[in-house]
Amino acid sequence: MASQPQSPVETIRHSAAHVMAEAVTRIWPGTKVAIGPAIDDGFYYDFQFASPIKDDDLPAIEKEMRRIIQGGAEFKRREVSKAEARTAFAAEPFKLELIEGLEDGSISLYEQDGFVDLCRGPHVANTREIRPDAFKLRSIAGAYWRGDEKRPMLTRIYAYCFSSKADLEAHLKLLEEAEKRDNRRLGKELDLFSTHEEAGPGLIYWHPKGGRFRVELEKWWREEHYANGYEILFTPHIGKSWLWETSGHLGFYKGNMYSPMKIDEDDYYAKPMNCPFHIMIYKSDTRSYRDLPLRWAELGTVYRYERSGVLHGLMRVRGFTQDDAHIICTPEQIEDEILEVLRFSLSMWKTLGFKDIKAYLATKPAESVGEPSRWDQALESLRKAIVKEGLPYEVDEGGGAFYGPKIDLKVKDAIGREWQMTTIQFDFNMSERFQMEYVDADGQHKRPYMVHRALLGSIERFFGVYIEHTGGAFPVWLMPEQAVIIPVASTFDDYAKKVVADLKRQGIRARADLSDARMNAKIRTAQGQKTPYMLVVGQKEQDEGTVAVRFRDGRDQSTMSLADFLARVLARIAEKSLDL
Amino acid sequence: MASQPQSPVETIRHSAAHVMAEAVTRIWPGTKVAIGPAIDDGFYYDFQFASPIKDDDLPAIEKEMRRIIQGGAEFKRREVSKAEARTAFAAEPFKLELIEGLEDGSISLYEQDGFVDLCRGPHVANTREIRPDAFKLRSIAGAYWRGDEKRPMLTRIYAYCFSSKADLEAHLKLLEEAEKRDNRRLGKELDLFSTHEEAGPGLIYWHPKGGRFRVELEKWWREEHYANGYEILFTPHIGKSWLWETSGHLGFYKGNMYSPMKIDEDDYYAKPMNCPFHIMIYKSDTRSYRDLPLRWAELGTVYRYERSGVLHGLMRVRGFTQDDAHIICTPEQIEDEILEVLRFSLSMWKTLGFKDIKAYLATKPAESVGEPSRWDQALESLRKAIVKEGLPYEVDEGGGAFYGPKIDLKVKDAIGREWQMTTIQFDFNMSERFQMEYVDADGQHKRPYMVHRALLGSIERFFGVYIEHTGGAFPVWLMPEQAVIIPVASTFDDYAKKVVADLKRQGIRARADLSDARMNAKIRTAQGQKTPYMLVVGQKEQDEGTVAVRFRDGRDQSTMSLADFLARVLARIAEKSLDL
Repeated sequence: MASQPQSPVETIRHSAAHVMAEAVTRIWPGTKVAIGPAIDDGFYYDFQFASPIKDDDLPAIEKEMRRIIQGGAEFKRREVSKAEARTAFAAEPFKLELIEGLEDGSISLYEQDGFVDLCRGPHVANTREIRPDAFKLRSIAGAYWRGDEKRPMLTRIYAYCFSSKADLEAHLKLLEEAEKRDNRRLGKELDLFSTHEEAGPGLIYWHPKGGRFRVELEKWWREEHYANGYEILFTPHIGKSWLWETSGHLGFYKGNMYSPMKIDEDDYYAKPMNCPFHIMIYKSDTRSYRDLPLRWAELGTVYRYERSGVLHGLMRVRGFTQDDAHIICTPEQIEDEILEVLRFSLSMWKTLGFKDIKAYLATKPAESVGEPSRWDQALESLRKAIVKEGLPYEVDEGGGAFYGPKIDLKVKDAIGREWQMTTIQFDFNMSERFQMEYVDADGQHKRPYMVHRALLGSIERFFGVYIEHTGGAFPVWLMPEQAVIIPVASTFDDYAKKVVADLKRQGIRARADLSDARMNAKIRTAQGQKTPYMLVVGQKEQDEGTVAVRFRDGRDQSTMSLADFLARVLARIAEKSLDL
Repeated sequence: MASQPQSPVETIRHSAAHVMAEAVTRIWPGTKVAIGPAIDDGFYYDFQFASPIKDDDLPAIEKEMRRIIQGGAEFKRREVSKAEARTAFAAEPFKLELIEGLEDGSISLYEQDGFVDLCRGPHVANTREIRPDAFKLRSIAGAYWRGDEKRPMLTRIYAYCFSSKADLEAHLKLLEEAEKRDNRRLGKELDLFSTHEEAGPGLIYWHPKGGRFRVELEKWWREEHYANGYEILFTPHIGKSWLWETSGHLGFYKGNMYSPMKIDEDDYYAKPMNCPFHIMIYKSDTRSYRDLPLRWAELGTVYRYERSGVLHGLMRVRGFTQDDAHIICTPEQIEDEILEVLRFSLSMWKTLGFKDIKAYLATKPAESVGEPSRWDQALESLRKAIVKEGLPYEVDEGGGAFYGPKIDLKVKDAIGREWQMTTIQFDFNMSERFQMEYVDADGQHKRPYMVHRALLGSIERFFGVYIEHTGGAFPVWLMPEQAVIIPVASTFDDYAKKVVADLKRQGIRARADLSDARMNAKIRTAQGQKTPYMLVVGQKEQDEGTVAVRFRDGRDQSTMSLADFLARVLARIAEKSLDL
C-alpha cells in the first residue's frame, strides 16, 4: 500500500497517545516512555513502570487525561539536532535508543503542557481537539521492547479513540456484538469445531456439526464449479524439493513453509500452495489451443507457518483448505475468462447472502517479472471485469505481487466489518518457471496465461466469517440440524418420532428432543443452537396431523399440516434461501 | 498366519526350482547357486554367473530342464551334519553362508541326477512329476544376496509353474488380461491420474476425469454414510509429537511414519492414521451412554512410508485417502454395531458390483493388550456378524494385531483375483492410552469399545482395483463422460450441440465430438475411452428428434427418441445400475 496522509481521526489518536503519556508520567513520575502509535480503533503506548499497574488504575489515567484535555494546551513542534534530542531525553533510555536510529536533521519533537515526545507528527493544534468523551482506555498488556523477547518487557496500555462520542459508542456496540458472534465462542457453543494446543495450535478439528456444514457447503461448491465449466482435481499434500525449487517457493516463500521431512534421501515439503501440482498435471500432456481454456479447481488443504501468537480461531490458522482454481488460457481468451471468474464469484457470494462487496485492484510493483505488454493486458482485463460487474473499487497502485496484478474482493458482514475473501491473481512467474506451453493454431508453442483464484478463500476462514456474519444462524440448507420436534408431554413421543421419520425420509435433518427437560427449556436449547424450526406437538397436532412451528428468529408459532411444512422446508433448501 | 503344510503345487514348484538350478549349472558349469523358493505362481532361483546371461538364454534352460524331467531322476533326501554339509558345498560360497545359519542336526540335502541342493523339502518323488508343459521361464532380474544392497548382486530367474498345462495357460491368460487392465496403463489411456517421480513417487495426481470419478464416488459415500447413521469429520494432516507419543505410534509404528517437520520448537508428523484426531474430538466433551454409539467417518488422507521399490500405480502408494470410520460404543451395543458395520459394508460392495466376498477373521495373538473378556466379546461379535450375513470365512488363529481382533474382507474381481479391501478392527490400545470414557446410566465412568473401519480401504487403491475390475468401463453413474454425440457430417453439428445441451441440462455428462475425424474414428475413440453411450446423429435423427445409440459393450445401435434416451440414462444413474 502506498503511504497515505494521516486521516483526521488518526491525528487525534496519535495526539491522545501523547496526552496519555503525559498523564501517566504525572501520576507515576519517573515512568519511562517508549512508543505510542495510533492503531485501527485508537492507540496504545508502551511504558516501563517502576512497579506494575493494574486495570483498576485505568480510570485514574483517564481522569487525568480529561483534565489535560480541558486545559487546552497547544501541541508545539520543533526540529532539533541529534545532540539536542539526546539532551532532551537524557532520562529516557528507550527514546535514546530510538534517537540513535534517526538521521540528523530529520528529528522533530512535540511538546504539550511541558511534556515532550520524540515524534514525526502531525498532531492536532490543541488538546481540546480531542473529545474527552470519545476515548476509553481498554486494557493493559505486556509487550517486549521492539517486539524482541530478549529485550525488556514493557507495559502497553490500549485505548479506543474516535472523533466523536457517537463513533466511540458505535464501536463499543460493534465490539459487543462481535464478541457474541466470536467464532471461537460459537464454535464451542454450537459444537462446530475445536483446536487442540497440545496436538498443535492453529489446526482445526471439525466436529460432526461443523462437518455437516462443510459437507453441504463443499457439495454446493462442487456442483456450481462443474456447472460453470470447471473440472475438479485432487493432488498430494507433499512434494519433493525439486518441485519447490522449480516453482521458486524455496526462494521467495520459504519463511511460510514448514521444515522438510526426509523420505529416503529426499526432502519433502508440506504444500503451502496447490499451483505446482496443477502445473504438473498440465504438463503431463501436450496441450493445444483447442484444449483451452482450462478451469481446474481443487479443495486443496495447504499448510503455512504463522507465528503462534497470531493464530486466532478459524480466522488465522496453520492448515487450511483453499477453494483454489487455476485458469489456464490463451491471451485471446483472458478477458472473457476474467469476466467469467468475477461473475461466478459474485454469484456465489450472492447465494451466501453477501450483498456489499468491494474490489481492490493491485497494479504492477517496482520489481516484477513478466512482459510489460502482458501486465497491461492482464490489468486491463481485471479492470474491465470490475467495471462490467459495476463493482465499487479502489486501485492499489504498485500493490500487486511481483508475479502479476490481482483483484481482491472484500465482503461486508452483517455488523459492517469488511473481510477480504476472494482473490483473482495473475501469475507470470510460475508459467515461466515451469515452461508451460500450448500449441497454437499456427503450430507455434506459446505461453498460456495462468490465473490463480480462491473464491471463498479458505473453507476454514470462510466458516469463521460465516459464523460471525450469521451468529451461527446459517441458512436452512447449511444448518447441521434443521428441525427439532418437541412433544409437549412424553405421551406424544411417538407422534414426535413419526414426524422425525417423515422429515428424514425427505432428507431433512430432524431430531426429536425426548429428554426429561420441560418444553420451554427444550425450545430455549433449540433456539440457542440456532435450529431454524422447532416443531411443538401435542394432542391437537397429533389428532390433526399438524405441527406448531416456532421459528428461530422468534416469529410467533403457526400451525400447519406436516405436508405444508415439508413443502416449505424443501423449497427453502432447494432455493438455498436465506429465509425460514 | 500360522505355518501351513506345503500344498502339492508348491512342492512341484520347489522341485522345479532344483531342476532349473541343475540345468543352469550343466549349461554354465561353475555358476554359483544361492536360493530358489516357490512363489505364488511359480518359483525363482538366484545365481551368480561368471558372465551375464540374457533373456535369449532362457529357452536353452527350459529345454535342458525338460530333458532332465524326462530323465525321471528321483529326489533323494539325506540328513547330514554341519561338517558334512560344508564339505558337500565347499565350492558354493552362498550355500556355505546359509549352512552357518543352520543348527547342527537339522540339515537336509536333496539330490536329483547328481545335483545336490541344501533344502528342507519336501519334494516330489521323481522329476517326472513336474509337467514339462506346465512351466515357463518368465524373466531375469537382479537381486542382492539376502536382499542387502551391500552384498553381491545376483541373477534371479523367475518361472511360472503349475500342476497342469491347463493351469499354466489359464494363468498366462489371466496375466494377459491383467496387463490390459493394468491401472497404470488405463490411468494413462483414459487420462485418469498420473504420478511424478521427480516430485515424489507414490503420490497420486488425479486428473479431471479421475477427479470426476472420485467426486461422484465420494458423494455417494457421504450420502450412504449419513443415511446409515454416521457423522462426517474433517481433521488435520499433521499433529505434534505429543499426539503420537500418547497414541503410541512413535513406539510401534514409527518405521511407517515420515521424519518430523519442525514447527517452532516442536516436532510435527504427517498422519499415518486418523484415529488420534477422532479421539481428540471424542475427548473434547464429556460423553454419556446416551450419546453412544457414535459412528464417525472421515475421508482422511494419510501418509505412510513405503520403500520406493514396492510402489505400484494406485495399488501401493505413499499418500492415500482412507475411507475411515470409528465406532465408539458401549459393551451392550457392540454386537449390533459390528453386525451393522458388516451389513453396511456388504451393501456398499454390492452397489459397486462385487458379489464374491470372503471374510478373514483374525484372533488374539500371543502378545496383546486389553482384557481377555473384551477380546472374547469382540471376537464373538465379529464371528456372529459373519455368520448372520452368511459370508464364507477363514479363521486366522493368532493373526490379530496386538490391540484387537479384526475381520478383513477380500473381494473377487472380474478376472478372479482377490483383493483385500474392507477391514473392521477392534482397538483396545488407543482407547486405553487416551483414557477414553463415557458416563454410564449408573454414573460410573467406563471405557467404551472403539472399532476402526475402512470400507473401501483407500480411495486410491479402490480406484486402482476398480479400474482393473471394470477395465475402465465404470458403471454409468461413475463415468467421467457418459455420452458422446457424433454427427455423421458437420452439417449436423448444430443438432449435436442441441442434444448435448438437452442432456447437460438434466445433469448428464455429455460432449459432442466436432473434430475433423471421420465418424468411425470418432466411435472408435469413444469406445476406447469406454464411453457408455455414443449417439450418432444425421439427417434422420435431426428430422425426427432421435438419436442412434451405440453402446460401449458393442451391442447393435438402436434408434430412440431423445426423451426415451434421457429417461433411460437418468434411470441408470439414479439406480447406480451396472447395466447400460
